[in-house]
Amino acid sequence: MIGDNLLPLEELDSVYMDRGTFFGDGVYEVVRSYNGKIFALDEHIQRFENGLGAIGIKNVDIGKIREKVVTAFEKSQIPNAKIYFHLTRGSGQRRHDYTGDFKPNFFLTVTKLEDSSKYKKGISVITHPDWRWKRCDIKSLNLLPNVLAKQVAAEKGAFEAILVNESGYITEGSSSAFFAVFDKKIHTTPLKDNILPSISRKFVIKACGNLGLEVIERHLKPENAKKADELFIAVTTKDIVPVIEFNSIKISNNQPGETTLKIAEEFLKFTT
Amino acid sequence: MIGDNLLPLEELDSVYMDRGTFFGDGVYEVVRSYNGKIFALDEHIQRFENGLGAIGIKNVDIGKIREKVVTAFEKSQIPNAKIYFHLTRGSGQRRHDYTGDFKPNFFLTVTKLEDSSKYKKGISVITHPDWRWKRCDIKSLNLLPNVLAKQVAAEKGAFEAILVNESGYITEGSSSAFFAVFDKKIHTTPLKDNILPSISRKFVIKACGNLGLEVIERHLKPENAKKADELFIAVTTKDIVPVIEFNSIKISNNQPGETTLKIAEEFLKFTT
Repeated sequence: MIGDNLLPLEELDSVYMDRGTFFGDGVYEVVRSYNGKIFALDEHIQRFENGLGAIGIKNVDIGKIREKVVTAFEKSQIPNAKIYFHLTRGSGQRRHDYTGDFKPNFFLTVTKLEDSSKYKKGISVITHPDWRWKRCDIKSLNLLPNVLAKQVAAEKGAFEAILVNESGYITEGSSSAFFAVFDKKIHTTPLKDNILPSISRKFVIKACGNLGLEVIERHLKPENAKKADELFIAVTTKDIVPVIEFNSIKISNNQPGETTLKIAEEFLKFTT
Repeated sequence: MIGDNLLPLEELDSVYMDRGTFFGDGVYEVVRSYNGKIFALDEHIQRFENGLGAIGIKNVDIGKIREKVVTAFEKSQIPNAKIYFHLTRGSGQRRHDYTGDFKPNFFLTVTKLEDSSKYKKGISVITHPDWRWKRCDIKSLNLLPNVLAKQVAAEKGAFEAILVNESGYITEGSSSAFFAVFDKKIHTTPLKDNILPSISRKFVIKACGNLGLEVIERHLKPENAKKADELFIAVTTKDIVPVIEFNSIKISNNQPGETTLKIAEEFLKFTT
């Protein structure tokens, strides 16, 4: 039954039996292009491949996935595009384990990237408990905790929810990496299985290196973060976004910080 | 792009833009019938409604959902049926937060229940880290940790994975409630946000009450469980299933325990 429509199981399109929907049994990526050029595609493809391996989806020709991304992007003729793609284990009778053969389902969209200039003036964030599973290093389709946190942020007029684990430490944003600046040193959560190996994070660190800025990988608590000289997040679709309000507390005089802007400028050099 | 098929976004069926697939943004239930009669439908419908509330899916006419379940079941003419249904927040451009209007997507299947008599002789289980999110009280579509644990069990020739949290305590099975019997007392994990409020668990406790068996809600470690007189799991589609092997250790002489069988018998009385 789909909605109110009753039909025999044999006539059901296999999309309705996708393990992606039943279980979130798949991984995804979001990449973007800058003026007709996809940014960091190899890194995203590599993470995608790692994710497939981590959840035991085998026999995927990763070269073909890359090709599909490039083809779809080129055909779209959108210079500044957001490319979303996921691959699920496949369709079949609902059953938790995945012994037997599955034919993976691939799905991709190319859309015009939302203009992110308004975010560059600085955003506000709130904190929210990190309810996610213990393998946040896998970019899987299990995103309900992220959705719920982001919604709380949206309802409070904030752009992002910064997740705080049971020990009281910040992990990362619901869909972004999180950074604090103290005395021109950049602090961010160490990479472990509790956070995503963010590609944007990687390029932020590279940008800091180019600028001679020290990066310190450490766990921050909200009470530390709110005292930072500057805060920012990094996300594929908007690169670096200054945070000027943290749980209603004004940060860096309620305007983008100097160091943040420098890093953002340096970051953009990678994208051209 | 679906598989290899490139098409304009406007021509894409909305099923591909289901937040159920993008985020696991929905809840589900599995109910079964015994000889033409659905068991504990009200309890399942109530939990479904609670789940919708917990993730903020509003304006669902729960009476209509119940009606759909009954109608689909009756039309199927399957006396011993497994009825799966889920409802997702709806379809739309992928975006984490859900401000704006969404029309929920409802999906249901009725299939012949697998014959579970072979399980009644006893199953083996293994333990696996509980990687799930922190709101396991919500029966959501975020089930990848359950899938991965169940698969490990299947690959080891076991039927179920018993999940063990970071503190070393058993929570529940990847898709079942877990019970241990010591001196004819029944031990099971207390209901908190780290386990599902299992309907089968509720009826097990009721059966124990009828039999004058004490139920103790406490946290067990695997090293306790393996010393139990008896172990069993409870799951909607198979009711009570004796566990005769726990991490390769034989339980109750490798056969269903006496108390387990009594509870199973008592449980079945509720289903007629």
